[in-house]
Amino acid sequence: MERMTLLAGTANPVLAAALARELGVELGGCEVRRFPDGEVDVRLTASVRRREVFVVQPTCPPVNDHLVELLAVADACRRSAAARVVAVVPYYGYARSDKRHGRREPITASLVAGLMEAAGIDHVLTVDLHTTQIEGFFRVPVDTLSAVPVLCEALRDRVPADAVVVAPDAGRVALATEYADLLDRPLVVLHKRRESGTETRVTHIVGEVRGRACVLVDDMISTGGTIVESVGALRDAGARPDFTVVATHGLLLRDAAARLAAAGVGTLVVTDTVPPAPSPPPGLHVVSVAPILADFIRRTAAETRDAG
Amino acid sequence: MERMTLLAGTANPVLAAALARELGVELGGCEVRRFPDGEVDVRLTASVRRREVFVVQPTCPPVNDHLVELLAVADACRRSAAARVVAVVPYYGYARSDKRHGRREPITASLVAGLMEAAGIDHVLTVDLHTTQIEGFFRVPVDTLSAVPVLCEALRDRVPADAVVVAPDAGRVALATEYADLLDRPLVVLHKRRESGTETRVTHIVGEVRGRACVLVDDMISTGGTIVESVGALRDAGARPDFTVVATHGLLLRDAAARLAAAGVGTLVVTDTVPPAPSPPPGLHVVSVAPILADFIRRTAAETRDAG
Amino acid sequence: MERMTLLAGTANPVLAAALARELGVELGGCEVRRFPDGEVDVRLTASVRRREVFVVQPTCPPVNDHLVELLAVADACRRSAAARVVAVVPYYGYARSDKRHGRREPITASLVAGLMEAAGIDHVLTVDLHTTQIEGFFRVPVDTLSAVPVLCEALRDRVPADAVVVAPDAGRVALATEYADLLDRPLVVLHKRRESGTETRVTHIVGEVRGRACVLVDDMISTGGTIVESVGALRDAGARPDFTVVATHGLLLRDAAARLAAAGVGTLVVTDTVPPAPSPPPGLHVVSVAPILADFIRRTAAETRDAG
Amino acid sequence: MERMTLLAGTANPVLAAALARELGVELGGCEVRRFPDGEVDVRLTASVRRREVFVVQPTCPPVNDHLVELLAVADACRRSAAARVVAVVPYYGYARSDKRHGRREPITASLVAGLMEAAGIDHVLTVDLHTTQIEGFFRVPVDTLSAVPVLCEALRDRVPADAVVVAPDAGRVALATEYADLLDRPLVVLHKRRESGTETRVTHIVGEVRGRACVLVDDMISTGGTIVESVGALRDAGARPDFTVVATHGLLLRDAAARLAAAGVGTLVVTDTVPPAPSPPPGLHVVSVAPILADFIRRTAAETRDAG
Amino acid sequence: MERMTLLAGTANPVLAAALARELGVELGGCEVRRFPDGEVDVRLTASVRRREVFVVQPTCPPVNDHLVELLAVADACRRSAAARVVAVVPYYGYARSDKRHGRREPITASLVAGLMEAAGIDHVLTVDLHTTQIEGFFRVPVDTLSAVPVLCEALRDRVPADAVVVAPDAGRVALATEYADLLDRPLVVLHKRRESGTETRVTHIVGEVRGRACVLVDDMISTGGTIVESVGALRDAGARPDFTVVATHGLLLRDAAARLAAAGVGTLVVTDTVPPAPSPPPGLHVVSVAPILADFIRRTAAETRDAG
Amino acid sequence: MERMTLLAGTANPVLAAALARELGVELGGCEVRRFPDGEVDVRLTASVRRREVFVVQPTCPPVNDHLVELLAVADACRRSAAARVVAVVPYYGYARSDKRHGRREPITASLVAGLMEAAGIDHVLTVDLHTTQIEGFFRVPVDTLSAVPVLCEALRDRVPADAVVVAPDAGRVALATEYADLLDRPLVVLHKRRESGTETRVTHIVGEVRGRACVLVDDMISTGGTIVESVGALRDAGARPDFTVVATHGLLLRDAAARLAAAGVGTLVVTDTVPPAPSPPPGLHVVSVAPILADFIRRTAAETRDAG
Repeated sequence: MERMTLLAGTANPVLAAALARELGVELGGCEVRRFPDGEVDVRLTASVRRREVFVVQPTCPPVNDHLVELLAVADACRRSAAARVVAVVPYYGYARSDKRHGRREPITASLVAGLMEAAGIDHVLTVDLHTTQIEGFFRVPVDTLSAVPVLCEALRDRVPADAVVVAPDAGRVALATEYADLLDRPLVVLHKRRESGTETRVTHIVGEVRGRACVLVDDMISTGGTIVESVGALRDAGARPDFTVVATHGLLLRDAAARLAAAGVGTLVVTDTVPPAPSPPPGLHVVSVAPILADFIRRTAAETRDAG
Repeated sequence: MERMTLLAGTANPVLAAALARELGVELGGCEVRRFPDGEVDVRLTASVRRREVFVVQPTCPPVNDHLVELLAVADACRRSAAARVVAVVPYYGYARSDKRHGRREPITASLVAGLMEAAGIDHVLTVDLHTTQIEGFFRVPVDTLSAVPVLCEALRDRVPADAVVVAPDAGRVALATEYADLLDRPLVVLHKRRESGTETRVTHIVGEVRGRACVLVDDMISTGGTIVESVGALRDAGARPDFTVVATHGLLLRDAAARLAAAGVGTLVVTDTVPPAPSPPPGLHVVSVAPILADFIRRTAAETRDAG
Repeated sequence: MERMTLLAGTANPVLAAALARELGVELGGCEVRRFPDGEVDVRLTASVRRREVFVVQPTCPPVNDHLVELLAVADACRRSAAARVVAVVPYYGYARSDKRHGRREPITASLVAGLMEAAGIDHVLTVDLHTTQIEGFFRVPVDTLSAVPVLCEALRDRVPADAVVVAPDAGRVALATEYADLLDRPLVVLHKRRESGTETRVTHIVGEVRGRACVLVDDMISTGGTIVESVGALRDAGARPDFTVVATHGLLLRDAAARLAAAGVGTLVVTDTVPPAPSPPPGLHVVSVAPILADFIRRTAAETRDAG
Repeated sequence: MERMTLLAGTANPVLAAALARELGVELGGCEVRRFPDGEVDVRLTASVRRREVFVVQPTCPPVNDHLVELLAVADACRRSAAARVVAVVPYYGYARSDKRHGRREPITASLVAGLMEAAGIDHVLTVDLHTTQIEGFFRVPVDTLSAVPVLCEALRDRVPADAVVVAPDAGRVALATEYADLLDRPLVVLHKRRESGTETRVTHIVGEVRGRACVLVDDMISTGGTIVESVGALRDAGARPDFTVVATHGLLLRDAAARLAAAGVGTLVVTDTVPPAPSPPPGLHVVSVAPILADFIRRTAAETRDAG
Repeated sequence: MERMTLLAGTANPVLAAALARELGVELGGCEVRRFPDGEVDVRLTASVRRREVFVVQPTCPPVNDHLVELLAVADACRRSAAARVVAVVPYYGYARSDKRHGRREPITASLVAGLMEAAGIDHVLTVDLHTTQIEGFFRVPVDTLSAVPVLCEALRDRVPADAVVVAPDAGRVALATEYADLLDRPLVVLHKRRESGTETRVTHIVGEVRGRACVLVDDMISTGGTIVESVGALRDAGARPDFTVVATHGLLLRDAAARLAAAGVGTLVVTDTVPPAPSPPPGLHVVSVAPILADFIRRTAAETRDAG
Repeated sequence: MERMTLLAGTANPVLAAALARELGVELGGCEVRRFPDGEVDVRLTASVRRREVFVVQPTCPPVNDHLVELLAVADACRRSAAARVVAVVPYYGYARSDKRHGRREPITASLVAGLMEAAGIDHVLTVDLHTTQIEGFFRVPVDTLSAVPVLCEALRDRVPADAVVVAPDAGRVALATEYADLLDRPLVVLHKRRESGTETRVTHIVGEVRGRACVLVDDMISTGGTIVESVGALRDAGARPDFTVVATHGLLLRDAAARLAAAGVGTLVVTDTVPPAPSPPPGLHVVSVAPILADFIRRTAAETRDAG
C-alpha cells in the first residue's frame, strides 16, 4: 500500500477512519475548514507528490458543500503533483438527476461527472449507483461496488423463513432479484401509477404476500415516502405486519425514521455510505462498506504491484 | 429554412428524401461512395459555409459503416466551415451498450457519443432512445423525439376494442404505460427471469389477458426473440390469438419477420427510422417519422429566426 | 434586445429584477427549486434555443449552493441549445482563493473558472474582481465592470470636504487611488504587519489624518475585521471620529454591521451585487449595479446588431 | 515484460499470435464478438488495471468494423484503468485520405487520429505509413517502423543480379531509393500523367530497363492496377519479363493476385500486416513483421525498466 | 462585409493594406508594439465584439516573433468576445517541419497548429502550403488558396515559347505539372540523390532541355540553394541560359537574390505572401495575392449572408 | 535520479550545466539549432521513452524564440513517449502581462500557460513569479521556488548594519517584507503616483531613511528605470549614498547596468535565472539558483522513490 495516500473530506469521517483501519494505513493529512463566508478552505499537510491519492467523500447532503469540497481537494492534489486522484464517493449525489423529464432541464449527474473530470479526478470508486448508466457519463474509469452481498449477510438472521422480497416499483426489479436470489426468497413486485405530480398509487402486487413477512428493498431511503406507501399496500393485501426495509444508502431525511417506524417497519438495514443520523431509530442496523472498499483498493494495489 | 442544408448519408435515403419533402427543401449535395477497399469516400458538392447542416444518418446495420460514414460527413462539414453540424440519427446504434455488465467492458454508447463530439457534431436529434440516460453521455445538446403518438395514431383503427397493451418485461413498463394511456387500454406487464446466459422465462403476467387481444410494445424489434417468447406466454395464459406488435425501430434482423408471423403476430407497426426490409412481411405497417422530425426542425428554425 | 433571454438564479432575485427593468425585458422562465435532500432542481419554462442567455447569479453565500445552481442552469441552457451562455456573476465567490500560500492548497478561484467552462459557460460578466488576474484563469472572455464611479457618485454628497481616502493596506492602494481621484481627495495608506496567523497590526499611516474625516475603501466587507482595526488605528492617529466605509460587495457576515457601528462607522456605502442583509444597519446606503450591467449588455447588443 | 498485456482484436489474429510468441508472452484475454445486429461486443477476461496494454489491430478491410472494434477495446481498457493503451496498428486504414483534393472533403486519416485519441489510445505503433505526415495528425506519440529491411532480406536471394528497382511514380521515389540502396541495385522511376479521373499513363521511364529484371516497389498493393500498368510500360520499354513486386501491405483486393500473375509478375513479396488472402497466389512470399514489432516493444520495455 | 473586422499584425502590413483596399474596408485598430524586453504588446483600439475577425499575419521570419504575435492578437480577440477569429497566414512558417526524420524530433508544423487552436483561432486561410497534409494537423477548418493561376498569368508574357517547366526534384512534380498545364509547356523533372547531410546531386533529367529556356518552379525560395544547383545541372545538359524562377513564397534569405542572379536567373516571379526584401534584385516581379484572398473572403461573406 | 533526464534549451546553458553538476547527472542529448530562416530545429540524441524529462529553459529575451524553442522541445519529448515533461522555467517571460489594463488586450501570461499545456508540458518549475496568481493560469502543477533566502545569504556580508530594506512601490511590499525579515532590517516603502503613460513620481516615503544605507528590492531588473527613480527619491530624502539593489531576475536590458552605476548603485545582487550580460558591471554579484532547483528536484525524486 506504500504508493498510496488516503485522504478524508468532511462528509463521512467515520467511514474514512474505518477504511483506514481496514487498510492498515493512516489517514493522510488533509485539513478542510470553512472561511467565515462559508468558502471551503483546504490544505494538505503532507506531500502527495507522485502518490496515488484516494479521497473519501460521499456527496451526501449538504450535497453542494460536499461536492465543491471534493473538487477543491482534488484540485489541491493535482496542483501538488499527485500521480492519480481517485475519488471514493460511496454515495453519488445527484444520481437521480440522470435524465431530463422534458427538454429544458440539466442532466445534473452528467454535469457532476464533467466537473469531477475538470477538477482533475482520474478515477471514481462508488457503491450501488442509482443507475448503472451514470458510469457512461464519465470518460475516466468508474468502479461501482455492490453492497448487496454484505447487506444480505446482515439480513440473513433477521429475516423470517417465510419472508418475501419486495420491489417497490418496476424500476427496482433488477435490484430486488439480486436480493431474492442471495436470500433465496420469492420475489414480489409492486406496480404503481402516477396519480399526479407528486403522488403515486400501487395498482398491482405481483406475487403472493398474504400472511408473509416482507423485505422491501431499494437503493436509497430518502424521505421514506415510497416505502411507507408500499407498506400500506402490502398490509392491505394481507401481508403479515412484519416489515423489514433494506437499502444501501440510508439518507433518512427529515422525519423518515419516525415515519417508517409509524408505518410498522421494525427493522431497517442500511450501510454507512452516508453518515448515520444523529438519533438513530430503534431497529436500525448499519453495515459498513469499509471492508468492500478496502478489499477493492487492496486488490487494486496488488494488481498494480504485480503489474509494476 | 434558408440558413440550413439537409444532407443524407447512405443509411436511409428514403427517410432523408421524405424529410426534405416535408421541409420543402432540396437534399444538399453529399456524395458518399466507397473506395475499392471499402473505405468511405465523402464529397460535398455544394458549399455549407456558415450554414446549419443537418446530416440524416441513422446508425442502423451495418452499424460501423454507417457510424464512420456519419463521422466522415461531419468532418467534411466542419472542415468546410459549417456553422453547426446537427446529426439526425433517428436510430442510435449501440444504444443497448449503455452500461457494463461486469467491470471489463466498453460502454460503447458512451464511446460513440465521444466519437461524435470528436468529429465535430454539435447537436444530435434522435427518436426514442433505448434509455434516456444516453443523452447524458453527451456534452452537446441531444433532442429525443417520441414516435409513440404517431404510432398510436396508426394503431387506433387496427386495434380491437378489448385489446390490452403488454409490456414484455419490467424495463418497458414506462414505455407501455405511454401507449396504454394514449390508446386508452389496460396495461399488462410480463415478468421474466433469466434462466441462463441467453434464455429467459416468463414467470408472471400482471393484469388480465384471458380472451383479450394483445398489443405488445417495445422500442425496437431486433431478432424478435423477446416478442416470440412473450406471445407464447400470453397464448398460454388464454389470450385471444390476435397479436399486434408495435415498436419504433423495426430492424427485423435475420428471419425476424417470419418468426413473428409464425408466432401469430398478425399486425406489426414500426416507423421508418431504419430502412424497410427488402421483402416486407404481410401485416407490416410503416409509419414515417419524417413529419415529427420536420416539425421539430421547423420549430427550431422559427425560434432561431425569432431569436435572431 | 430580441436575441437575448435574461434568467435569474436564486442568489439575488432583486438585482435580477432590477436588471430586467433597466433593460426593459421580462425575466425568462427559470424555476430553481430544491429536492428534499437539498439537490438543486432546475427547469427552464421557455425555449432558449439559439438565444443568448444571461444568467444572473452572484456566487455569494451560501457560495457552494449558488455556484452549483449556476452550473446547473448553464447545463440546462447548453442542453437546450442556447447559442451562448453568459454568466452574470456580479460577486465572484472564492475570488480571494486566487493563489496558494504554501504548496499544498487548491487555487479555488481557478478551479471555479474551470468548472464554469466545463458547465458550458461561454462568457462571464462580473463587477470589481478581487484581483484582475482572475480573468486569466479563464479561456473564455470575462468582462469586469467597475462600480467605483457609481459608488463615488453616491459618496459625493455624503463625504465632508476635508475627508481623506484610506487604503486599509498596501494591496488596496490601486483601488483607493481610483476613489481618491474621482472624489478629488488625498490618499492615505495604512501599513500592516501580520502578527500571527489571524492577527495583523497597523504599523504606519502614510499621509495626514489628524483632524480629518476618513473614507475607508475596500472591494468587499466580509466580517468587517480589517475595517474595525483600521478605524482604531486612524482614531489613535488623531482622525476625526467621522468614518465612512465604501465597498463594492457588502457581504456583512455575522455581526459585521454591528461591529462597524460600534467602531464608529457612521456611513456604509455598498452595492447590491449581493442581496441586502435582512436587517440593514442604520447608515447603510445601497447603490445598484443594475444600471451599469444593463448599460454593458445594451452596448453589447448594439455592437452585435451592428456587427450582424 | 511483466508490466504489459498483449491483446488481439479480430483483424489479424495470426500476427498477434506470432507477436506473442516472439515476445514470449501469452495473448491476454479479450473476447470480441458480434451481437445479432452486427454491433461489436467486447469483453476483457483478465484485469488490465495499471498495466500497459498493447492492442494488435490493423485497420484493414472491413476497415470500419476493425476501426470501431479497436476503439471499443481501447474504451474497455481505459474504463478498466489500464495505465496506457498502445494501439498496434501495423496497417493504418484511411491513410490515403490524408488530404483534401478539393475543399469539401473530410481528411479521414486525421479524423481517425482524433477518434483514436477520443477513445483513450495513448500511443500508436504502426508500420510504413502511407505518408509520414500522418504522425502529425496525432498529439500522442506515434512510432512508425520500417519493414523495408526485412523485405530486402527476403528479396536478396530472389532477385537477379542485374535487376533494377522501379518506383512506379514520382511519389514513391523516396521509398524506392531505400530499397535500391539496401539491395544495391540501380533505381528506375516511372513518370505518369493522369489521363482522366481514374486513368493514368506512363510517359517517361527514368533509368535503363532494357533487358533487365525489374523489382517494382510500393507501400501497399490494393487492386494492383498501378503495378499492372507499370509492368506493361516496362515491358514495352524492353525490360526482361522477370518482374518482382514488393510492398509492405499486401491487401490484394478483389482479383489483384490473378491480375498480377496475368501481367507476368512471378514473385510477390509482402508482409503480414494484413491477414493473408484465403487462396494465396503462387509466387507469394509473406515476411512477418512480428520480429520488428517485438524488437521495438522489447527495447521499449527495457528502456522503461532502465528508466523506472 | 459589415460583419467583419480586418486586423493586421506587423509581419506584412503592405499585404494587409492591399487586402483592405481590395475588400473596400478599413484596417481595424490593432496596435502591436514591443516592450523594452521584446515582449509583444497588443492592444485592439476598436471593439470586435461578436464580429468575425480576420488577422493578417504570415509567419515569415522572424518566425517566432510573428507566430507569438499572431497568437497574442488571437487571444485579445477571443477575450474581447469576437464571434470568430480567422487567421490569414499566407505563408505558414514551419511548414517544412511536417514530419520527423528520425524518432526524436518535434513535428513543429503540427505543434504550431495546436498552438493556434489553443490561442482561440477558429479558422485558417493560407496560400500554397508546403504539403497539403498540414491541413489535417488542424481540427478547425483550413482553406488553402493556390497562387499558381495568378503566377502563371504574370509569367505568360515573360516566358519564351520554347520554354520547358522544370520540377527541381521528384517532390515538386505535382506542383510543376500544374504550372506546365496552365502554361501549356512541356514538363521536365530533375532527379537528385542526397550525397551527404546537406548536399545533393542531380542524377537524371527527365525530358528534353537542350536549347530550351527553363522555368524552374518551387513553392518557396529560401536560400536559393536548390535552384542554383538545378540551374547548373540544366546548363550542363545544354539548356539555353535563359532561366526563369517562379515560386509562391519569395523569402530570399541571406544573399539568395545575388546567388540566383550569379547563376543566371534573369527573371524571378514571386508573390507578396512575405514582405519584399529591402533591396529587390533586378528581374524580380512580385504578384499580389491580395486579390485572391479578397475574392475568397468576399465569397465567404456572400455565402454567409445568403446563409444568414 | 535514474528515472530522469535533464535537457537544456539554448536560453541558459550555463545554468543548465550548473544544475546538472548539482544533481550529479549528465545533461541529456538535446540539439537545438536554427534553420537558415530562423526556424527552430530540435533533435533529441538519446531516448527519453518513459522517462521524466526536465527541460531547462527560462523564457528570457529573445522571449519568443526561447518560448517556441521550449514548446518544440516539449513536443519532441511528448512524441518520443516521455513519461512526463517538466519545464524548468526559472524566469517566466510575459509574467507582467498577467492582466488586461483595458478590455481589448491579451492576457499573454495566461496565453503562454495555455500554449505550454497544448505542447504537452505536464509540470512547471519556476522561481519568484512576478505574481503568484500566474500559477492559477495553469491546470497542471506549478511549483514556484523562492530565491530570497539565497539572495539574503549573499547580502548578509555586503549590507551595512544600519541599512533599511526599500520596497520601490506598494506592489512590492510583500516581497520586501520577506527580505526585511530575513535580513532583520527595517522596512521602508515608497509610494508612487502615475504622472502620465510612462512616468511615475515618488510621493511618499514610509519609514526613516535619513542617513541610512538602502537595499532596494524587486523581483526583476529590466531597464532599471524604477530603481533609478527610487534611488533619486531616497537620496532627496537624505539617505546615505550607499545603495544596494537586489532582485531575482537580472535582465539588465539596454544600458541598465550603466544607468544603475550612474545613479549610485554600488552593489547589485541577482541570480542566474537569466544568463549574465556579456560585460557585467562592477559591483554585480550573481547567486546561482541551481542549488535550490537541484534540491527541489532531488526531494521530488526521493518522494517519488518513496511513493513508488
